Amino acid sequence: LSAFSDGHIDGHAPLVTGLTLNAYLAAGIRTDHETTGRDEAMEKLRKGMTILIREGSVSKDLAALASIISAETSAFLAFCTDDRNPLDVAEEGHLDFMIRKAIQLGAPVTHAYRVASISAARAFGLRDRGLVAPGYRADVVLIDDLMQCSVSQVIAGGRVVDDALFATRPFVAPVGLTSVKARPVTAADLAGRPAPAAGPVIGVIPGKIITDHLMLALPTQDGLRQPDLSQDVIRVSVIERHGHGGAGAQSMAHGFVKGFGLKQGAIASSVGHDSHNICVVGVDTADMALAVNRLLELQGGFVVVNGGAVTGEVALPVAGLMSQLPADELRPHLHHLREAAKALGCTLAEPFLQVAFLPLPVIPHLKITDKGLVDVDRFVLLD
Amino acid sequence: LSAFSDGHIDGHAPLVTGLTLNAYLAAGIRTDHETTGRDEAMEKLRKGMTILIREGSVSKDLAALASIISAETSAFLAFCTDDRNPLDVAEEGHLDFMIRKAIQLGAPVTHAYRVASISAARAFGLRDRGLVAPGYRADVVLIDDLMQCSVSQVIAGGRVVDDALFATRPFVAPVGLTSVKARPVTAADLAGRPAPAAGPVIGVIPGKIITDHLMLALPTQDGLRQPDLSQDVIRVSVIERHGHGGAGAQSMAHGFVKGFGLKQGAIASSVGHDSHNICVVGVDTADMALAVNRLLELQGGFVVVNGGAVTGEVALPVAGLMSQLPADELRPHLHHLREAAKALGCTLAEPFLQVAFLPLPVIPHLKITDKGLVDVDRFVLLD
Repeated sequence: LSAFSDGHIDGHAPLVTGLTLNAYLAAGIRTDHETTGRDEAMEKLRKGMTILIREGSVSKDLAALASIISAETSAFLAFCTDDRNPLDVAEEGHLDFMIRKAIQLGAPVTHAYRVASISAARAFGLRDRGLVAPGYRADVVLIDDLMQCSVSQVIAGGRVVDDALFATRPFVAPVGLTSVKARPVTAADLAGRPAPAAGPVIGVIPGKIITDHLMLALPTQDGLRQPDLSQDVIRVSVIERHGHGGAGAQSMAHGFVKGFGLKQGAIASSVGHDSHNICVVGVDTADMALAVNRLLELQGGFVVVNGGAVTGEVALPVAGLMSQLPADELRPHLHHLREAAKALGCTLAEPFLQVAFLPLPVIPHLKITDKGLVDVDRFVLLD
Repeated sequence: LSAFSDGHIDGHAPLVTGLTLNAYLAAGIRTDHETTGRDEAMEKLRKGMTILIREGSVSKDLAALASIISAETSAFLAFCTDDRNPLDVAEEGHLDFMIRKAIQLGAPVTHAYRVASISAARAFGLRDRGLVAPGYRADVVLIDDLMQCSVSQVIAGGRVVDDALFATRPFVAPVGLTSVKARPVTAADLAGRPAPAAGPVIGVIPGKIITDHLMLALPTQDGLRQPDLSQDVIRVSVIERHGHGGAGAQSMAHGFVKGFGLKQGAIASSVGHDSHNICVVGVDTADMALAVNRLLELQGGFVVVNGGAVTGEVALPVAGLMSQLPADELRPHLHHLREAAKALGCTLAEPFLQVAFLPLPVIPHLKITDKGLVDVDRFVLLD
């Protein structure tokens, strides 16, 4: 905080209110993009925070927060997406989607646009963008219909962006290849340690990155807790993948998660905020191990396994986080991946990002890292 | 401009509109405190400028601009005073006066306060003031009546400011003493040069720093234009006072000004924006010379002369611009000075600051410096 005390400091303050929020603000933090409720937003606004209203693929806060957008507040609000799946960007849109949805939810039209432009620029101290005006960057979209936010033309740096110009954009050489340094795992590695039948279970909430901290009794076998599909509870493991342990034992931890709807198989991801270790959920440890091991071969991405076979995968070889394919070519792979997850019984609209947020130990209430389950409210490792 | 291109650049753009305003803004200038009209203000707002609504002692723009204050605009407006006479600060107030007056003129109450606080702070990139909130400086005024903006208590840096605390404020050692380096002048020095009877006259506008560029025929004597009290036209001279000319001839220029109402005597000032040379207006060159020479003895200030005698004076020895007296002790002197000017027939409410703005050659339309009359619209010296 002191290193950036002269600059802009963005915050992450989910559910932080009252005196705790006061202390947080006293450190010089000026924005928050983790606000999920109207009362929470209004308290933060009153205390001088700029609220970045977020609508990602998992974390969807706009419905709860659109009603705070008004002439009185719009100077202190901005839109942000944060972890928005390329499929959603392609099919629903990005900030245009947020503007459209905010207006549908009743936000004053001009203030929805203000939140999407000048207010965001000002919040970050950017004085040359956010308006169509002399002295500002000539990055402009022309809109046919203000209510629908239908973009008819894009101008970037003063040039009309057509397909021919877009095709001339510079190619960025990939970085962070071969970043997945974990070693293959076995089903036995993922079985977990002996524990009482009643214990913590992560409760996934569809469309939220906040989880519930549940205490549930599960069946046991040889002293080990087991999945219970009747309660919609399956396994979750996180495996360190940056090679920090060298040749020693791989750092990993195991737990249980409720809410994916899986009846069989496993889903693994090398996207796992913010340490981006491997996170895998599944009904069956053998399928989970196969999914992890396929991820190692792909050098990152998403993998779906069912009954001992890979049924869907997308490689993300750039740091284990990004594809090298153009968005249009990636799109059918993502569609197929979703179908593969659905075939396991998955009921979540966005299973892969919901997996990716399970390891984020700064978001309430119960998360899991390679060190173990984290009680985020108390900021302690369980066990 | 390039030296400050990464920082905040304040503007002075009186009556600048259209393409000229676009060019001005393209240089990175982001505020203006010289806006005097509603249409001018709205164009500047539309083009992304923050308008600093000014209410000084001479330059009073609030009445013309109060109607632009709304929920839509308040984030892009601030109040400023700029050359507010200490008498006015004591008797009418400062920003409190502007808030009160704006509300009386119909501005939405909460937005008048927003303009006076958070919007001003944000316009200048100050992130730790403008709100009563955690992480902000504890500079607070408590207000009994929101409509009247009646301040009942002041808290500065977290301490309640009472008379005892105020008395402990540190004394600042004076700087810029003996800054008035001009040599005494004679009546003959101020007579001017031969010129046609019809020529330029500065038209003073009460309560404005903008002047009219008038063309008037004046009586002449020996080829020299003369004052004409029937047209309310008297003399004005500006005399370089920083000693730039060394032992050579003093740089000075002479002209005529309409609108002071003077029937006799002279008024001299070492406050003369922004070069702060000596500016003297008067009916009679002998009284004008006496007023200038008394200013030299005082090392700056304001002097009123009538019939060969000094009838009012206030010394401003700090750089020829500021008094060393506490505000309370200065106040009766300023009252006396105003009375002395009134006794000359002066009809202006604020004669001394109206004199002080005659030499400001960046404000339309006709001004005078020690180099001569300046046609500000064309940016050329006349003669």
